[in-house]
Amino acid sequence: MIQDHYQALKARNLSINASRGRPHTSQVDLCSGMLSSLETHFSEDGADVRNYGGLDGIPEMKRIFAQILDVSPQNIIVGGNSSISMMFDCIAALIHKGIWAAGQKFLCPSPGYDKHFAICEYFGLKMLSVPMTLTGPDMDVTEALAKDPDVAGMWCVPVFSNPQGYIYSDETIKRLASMPTACPSFRLLWDDAYSVHNFRGTRPRIANILHECTNCGNAARPLLFTSFSKISTPGAGVVCMAADENELKIFRERINIQTIGPDKINQLRHAHFFKDLSGVLAHMKKHANILRPKFERAYEVLETGLAGTGASFIQSDGGYFISIDTPPGCAKKVWQLCKEAGVLLTDAGATYPYGNDPLDTNLRLAPTGLSIDEIEQALEVLIVAVKLAVLK
Amino acid sequence: MIQDHYQALKARNLSINASRGRPHTSQVDLCSGMLSSLETHFSEDGADVRNYGGLDGIPEMKRIFAQILDVSPQNIIVGGNSSISMMFDCIAALIHKGIWAAGQKFLCPSPGYDKHFAICEYFGLKMLSVPMTLTGPDMDVTEALAKDPDVAGMWCVPVFSNPQGYIYSDETIKRLASMPTACPSFRLLWDDAYSVHNFRGTRPRIANILHECTNCGNAARPLLFTSFSKISTPGAGVVCMAADENELKIFRERINIQTIGPDKINQLRHAHFFKDLSGVLAHMKKHANILRPKFERAYEVLETGLAGTGASFIQSDGGYFISIDTPPGCAKKVWQLCKEAGVLLTDAGATYPYGNDPLDTNLRLAPTGLSIDEIEQALEVLIVAVKLAVLK
Repeated sequence: MIQDHYQALKARNLSINASRGRPHTSQVDLCSGMLSSLETHFSEDGADVRNYGGLDGIPEMKRIFAQILDVSPQNIIVGGNSSISMMFDCIAALIHKGIWAAGQKFLCPSPGYDKHFAICEYFGLKMLSVPMTLTGPDMDVTEALAKDPDVAGMWCVPVFSNPQGYIYSDETIKRLASMPTACPSFRLLWDDAYSVHNFRGTRPRIANILHECTNCGNAARPLLFTSFSKISTPGAGVVCMAADENELKIFRERINIQTIGPDKINQLRHAHFFKDLSGVLAHMKKHANILRPKFERAYEVLETGLAGTGASFIQSDGGYFISIDTPPGCAKKVWQLCKEAGVLLTDAGATYPYGNDPLDTNLRLAPTGLSIDEIEQALEVLIVAVKLAVLK
Repeated sequence: MIQDHYQALKARNLSINASRGRPHTSQVDLCSGMLSSLETHFSEDGADVRNYGGLDGIPEMKRIFAQILDVSPQNIIVGGNSSISMMFDCIAALIHKGIWAAGQKFLCPSPGYDKHFAICEYFGLKMLSVPMTLTGPDMDVTEALAKDPDVAGMWCVPVFSNPQGYIYSDETIKRLASMPTACPSFRLLWDDAYSVHNFRGTRPRIANILHECTNCGNAARPLLFTSFSKISTPGAGVVCMAADENELKIFRERINIQTIGPDKINQLRHAHFFKDLSGVLAHMKKHANILRPKFERAYEVLETGLAGTGASFIQSDGGYFISIDTPPGCAKKVWQLCKEAGVLLTDAGATYPYGNDPLDTNLRLAPTGLSIDEIEQALEVLIVAVKLAVLK
């Protein structure tokens, strides 16, 4: 019967892409006013944003990022349109300066973000998985691994982790800030991508990693990143990095050689449209109103549909993904069955370093770009696929 | 008397920055319509440019760049807002892949562009100066140096070279395309920054480096770059690279890991505003009308003022700079005298690798950002400074 159900679903000839965290058109529409207006072309320091200059960003954009990350504007370098590109470049800079070396090791809380893992692989940094818990990476494991002098860094998505939507506890953050590391140049790559992306409840407030590290005498440790890609528009947002002022020097040196400056016009568009943190949070409420019903409907369908299958999923109050764990050895099968029925999930395994999910259990589904109807259809396929895979 | 004249100029308390090739406000005003309008947010392939996707650019922007560089759209990767950043990244990619190595040598036609030289220095590529001639780099010297297997690449600004405004002859280009190189991975970094930036006469048409190299069996040799920074706005333009399709693979691989995509909204703004090459050329006529009187007035003042001083300058039909040669051993003195009288030129020496102008003769002046009145005042200071320096 479950086989018949699957065949019937296949006959629908669906074509639903739930593989990437893509905002829905209705979300990018929220900032349409920003894209087509530019009241002035002077930033508050009097610079004509259309011309050269301003390597690290206009003051008003630095201030907004400083508010989001709860650091000082002096800690901010505003970048271009891609935070992943800024992370890539930070790693490139550290390797170039001989602070890190290919062959060193990187801690990767898993499941995690495939683009992070791809950067490590590109630069020849050996990835070590660290299990995720409800309160962030398993800190006993992390602290033990950090005793290896070759362990040079760690990926962290502290709020609404990709894909589970977990939030690091203050205890986790304090342990990350204070733990001894055998590698003197150990860095936390702190990708605060979903800092304001709660679709339920209020914005989660966590311990501040830069302050915590500084207080422990590890000011150089954290490199923070955040992005407007899922606030304004993917691709034409504005991003930043933040770190201890002294630690920013090697990145400033690189940027000074690498470019003549970021797109300050786009920064000014953002600064005028969002104004400050409260403007950002007000805007994110509009996103939340679009996303909440999608996630809640998805949770409802999964709750019922996965009951008794041995598969589980995680509910979150924010972020962009739903993390689903099948019984061991089933994720690849489920992925394939979904694909054959026209539903594309993120590649099975992609949430682990080297695409290798050791138990073959984790699947990531990105509901944001879909309509509720598409989510229901995609989940119907997924649930049937789980049941089929478990049977086999 | 000349000392009195200098003191009188100093008493004017000037503050004129002629050090960087900055468009004048009236030039960036030419595209103000583009910055504040966005008729649609769909590119011609139906993609919503506000969302993820489209790693190498939207089709209409590729087509415009293909027309400018006279290559096929398949040869184009559209980038972000900075061509220097794309060049930096190409070199980083070649070194990362082991195709080049720090310690290898780079040919640098000199005087040349200080930002090019800074990239070589950052990556530990040893720079070798090649003399410039009226028809481009001295090809006898170039061909001789290319016999060294450590010579891995060469900077070229083929049209309106920075700073002299020379144009490579077809013979030079054919020799660059066909010359044997001991290093099998020798590359020409072809910075076609001023391709459409003639302010007098018609657009110079030169032999096509990609076609020439391909015809000689050296398809992998050239990496072309161009930019809208001095067509639309510095900082918020659009840039591209072009190369043999096969050769683009290692850059596509890197970009795929480095970013989720370029700012396609800004690409669409440009594509709608400029439409095609003829739209670009029509726009560049407006720039020319602003720049021509400035350069012509500068040439006039220099012609008279430098007569008999032993200093010379070069007239060009395009580009952004005026290259001035003082008698040997005087450039630094002139620069300092100018600075003390409130006129900032590009650092003496900056137009040579490692900032070292062996004869201490070359100075670069950027008149574009100044008014004619400012140009006249700056040149009055410069001419007096030359006379003083020669006297000493």
